[in-house]
Amino acid sequence: MNATDPARRCPAGDARASGSAPATDESPTVSDWYAISNADAIPTPTVLVYPDRVEQNLKRMVAMAGGAERLRPHVKTHKLPQIIALKRKAGIHKFKVSTIAEAEMTAAAGGEDILLAYQPVGPNIVRLVALMRRFPDTRFATLVDDPANLDAISRVAVAENVSITLYMDLNVGMNRTGIIPDAAAADLYRALCKAPGISVGGLHAYDGHLRNSDSQELARQVDAAFAPVWQLREQMLAEDLPVPRLIASGTPTFAVLAQHPDTEVGAGTTVLWDFGQAEVCPDHHFLNGAMLMTRVISKPTADRLCLDLGHKAVAAEMPQPRVRLMGLEDAALVSQSEEHLVVQTPRAAEYAVGDVVYGIPRHICPTMALHSDVWAVHKGVADASWPVVARARKITI
Amino acid sequence: MNATDPARRCPAGDARASGSAPATDESPTVSDWYAISNADAIPTPTVLVYPDRVEQNLKRMVAMAGGAERLRPHVKTHKLPQIIALKRKAGIHKFKVSTIAEAEMTAAAGGEDILLAYQPVGPNIVRLVALMRRFPDTRFATLVDDPANLDAISRVAVAENVSITLYMDLNVGMNRTGIIPDAAAADLYRALCKAPGISVGGLHAYDGHLRNSDSQELARQVDAAFAPVWQLREQMLAEDLPVPRLIASGTPTFAVLAQHPDTEVGAGTTVLWDFGQAEVCPDHHFLNGAMLMTRVISKPTADRLCLDLGHKAVAAEMPQPRVRLMGLEDAALVSQSEEHLVVQTPRAAEYAVGDVVYGIPRHICPTMALHSDVWAVHKGVADASWPVVARARKITI
Repeated sequence: MNATDPARRCPAGDARASGSAPATDESPTVSDWYAISNADAIPTPTVLVYPDRVEQNLKRMVAMAGGAERLRPHVKTHKLPQIIALKRKAGIHKFKVSTIAEAEMTAAAGGEDILLAYQPVGPNIVRLVALMRRFPDTRFATLVDDPANLDAISRVAVAENVSITLYMDLNVGMNRTGIIPDAAAADLYRALCKAPGISVGGLHAYDGHLRNSDSQELARQVDAAFAPVWQLREQMLAEDLPVPRLIASGTPTFAVLAQHPDTEVGAGTTVLWDFGQAEVCPDHHFLNGAMLMTRVISKPTADRLCLDLGHKAVAAEMPQPRVRLMGLEDAALVSQSEEHLVVQTPRAAEYAVGDVVYGIPRHICPTMALHSDVWAVHKGVADASWPVVARARKITI
Repeated sequence: MNATDPARRCPAGDARASGSAPATDESPTVSDWYAISNADAIPTPTVLVYPDRVEQNLKRMVAMAGGAERLRPHVKTHKLPQIIALKRKAGIHKFKVSTIAEAEMTAAAGGEDILLAYQPVGPNIVRLVALMRRFPDTRFATLVDDPANLDAISRVAVAENVSITLYMDLNVGMNRTGIIPDAAAADLYRALCKAPGISVGGLHAYDGHLRNSDSQELARQVDAAFAPVWQLREQMLAEDLPVPRLIASGTPTFAVLAQHPDTEVGAGTTVLWDFGQAEVCPDHHFLNGAMLMTRVISKPTADRLCLDLGHKAVAAEMPQPRVRLMGLEDAALVSQSEEHLVVQTPRAAEYAVGDVVYGIPRHICPTMALHSDVWAVHKGVADASWPVVARARKITI
C-alpha cells in the first residue's frame, strides 16, 4: 500500500455543497480560463495560483463540512500565508500542519489554532516551545503516540515552564503513525492526562487508507475503523478523563466524518485541487486553483517538444503522467529529467521554441514545495509573486 | 527511455585517478564515518555534507579528467556556494548550470566562467543579460538550438548593447534538446557566427544516453555519437568559422571524452555522489559526500518504523528504494508519503521513537533541491548550516 496511491477514489460530496455541478470551464476545449495576459513577463517553470478559485473551493469545503468550525484543513498543500488569509476570511480558524516551519508561517499569518499533526521528537520539541513563546496568542497543540516520547515532551514542558497541549495519535488501520486503540492506548491516554506540563487535547486519527468510491461502503469502512476510537473515547469519559475533541479524516472522508459530533475534519488538497485527487474523488467538483506554467525550450526531433518542466518543478512521486498539459492531452511522455520534460506529439509543428504551455499537476502538495515563489493571478494577470514561505524546513525557529 | 534510468552503468574511471581502490569506510558494518556527535541538536529531516569528502572527490575528478582545466562540472547537483568555493580551491574555474538562479549563485560565489547549459527563452533571455551586468567580470555563455530563438537572443543582445556568447546545442542521440548535427545545424552555426550581438562559443552536446558499463564499448558509442559533431566542427573550421570549444559529456562519459582535444567535460554527481550513480558507475569509487539524517517518529506496529523522511525530503522520481538506510538495509518499504517513510523490519524493537537513522539517497541532485538548508560536518560535528541558495528559481534576478 502506498499512501499516495492515485488509484484511490472517494465518494460524492455532501449534498449541502454549493454549486455541486462540475464547473464547465474546466475543459480546455471550452475556454482557457487559466491563460494569463502577461505571460511574456513571467519566467518558467512556475505555478500560477487563482485566488478567486481558491475562495470558491473554500466555500465548498465549508458547505460540505457543515460549517467552518468543523474544519481543520491541512496547510501542507499550499504553504502560503496568503491562503491562510483566504481561509480565515472564509471563517476557518483552525489549521493542521506537518512541520515547525508550516506552523510558524501559519501563526505569523494570523492562524489562531494550530495542530502540529506530527509527533515532535528530538529538537523539534523545544522548537515547538519556541513557537509557543514567539506567538503567545496562538493556540498550539501536537500529537503523541509513545509513552517514552510523552515523558520527553512532558520534561521539556516542565523545564520550560509551559503547558503543551497533546492529542493522542491513533492508528486506525493506515499503519503509518499512531498507537493502536487498545489497552496500551488507554494506558497512554491516562498517562497523558496526568503528565506534568501537559494539557489534554483529545484524540487524533488520520484515516488516509479509507478511499472507497461508494459513499455507503466508505461510511461502513469509517464506522469499522473508528469503532475502537469511539469505544476508547467512551471508556476514557467513563473514567472521568477529559476527551475534548477528536480530529480525524483526510480529503476522501471529510464529508463523512464531519457528520459525527465533537469531530473536526481535515481535507487539504481541496483548496488548490489537482487531477490526482479529482480521479480519487470524481464527484467532489472542486476547481483547479493552481496551474503549472511551462515553456517549450527545444524541439529535438520533428515530433518532440522539450518543456522546462522537469521533476524539480512538478511532483515526482506519482506515476507518469505527472502533469496534464492543456492542449497537449494526446502527447506521450518520452522522458523527464531534472529540468526537462520531453513529450512526443503529432502537434509538435504547431509549437515554437518559447511557446507557453499550461498544465495541471497530478499532485499539487509536493509540487508547491518545489517552487520558491508562485504567481497569483487576478483578472487574467499574474500580478503578485508569492513566496512559498513554508517550503523551508526552518523559517526563524 | 527515461533520462534518469537508474539501470544505466558506466565504466571504470581513468587509471590516472588517485586512490582508485574502493573506500573501505563506505560500509556501514565497518564504521559509521557519517555519524555526528551533536545529533541531538540537529532537526530532521536534513542533509549532512562532508566537505573533506567533497574535496577528495574533486581531486579524483581532476585526476580522471586529466586536469582541472578540462572540467566544467554541473552545479545543479549541489546548488551551494560553499562547494563552488571548494571547486575553485581544487583549480576548477568553469561551471555548468541549468537555471538563472544557479548562475547567479555561482557568479556570486566567485565562479569565473559560467555556461547556462539550457537554452534561454522568453524572459530568461533578459534575465541572462541582467546577470551579465550584475557580474561584469564573470564570463557567461549559453546555448541555442533554434534559428528563431537565435534571432530572439540576438535582438535582445543588440537592444541591450551586450555581446552574448552562444554555443550551438547538438542532439547526439539523447533526443532531449539540441539540433541534429546535419545540414540544418551547419546553417544555424553559420547564422550564429554572423548574428549581431552574438559571440561564438562553439559546440555543446550532452550525451546522457551513453551509459555502457564496458569501457571499450562506451568509447565506441561515444565515437559513433560524436562522429557527426567532429565532422561538423571540421566543416565549420574549413569554412573559416571559429569553433573555439566543444563542451560535452555527463558523468558516465567524462573520462572518455576528456581524452579528446579542445573538449571540456561535465560530471556533476561525482562531487557528492549517491547510490544510484554508484550503481551506474560501480568502478568510479567516489565517496559519499552527503547523507540524509532522519529520525524514527513513530512505531505504528511491532515490526514497523515510521521515519521523518517523506518524498518532500528525498528525491522521488526514482523507483523505490529512494534511500539506503544505514543499519536498516534489510528493511522493506511499506509506504512513503509527503513527510513519512514507513519500513518493515525485524529489527524494529531495537529502535525507539526519536532515534536517529542515516541514509544515502539514490539521487542526490533533486534531493538537495528539497532542502532549504543542509549541515556541513567537520570532524564529526554538524557545525555549519548552509542554505541551499540556488534551489530558489530566483535569487535576485
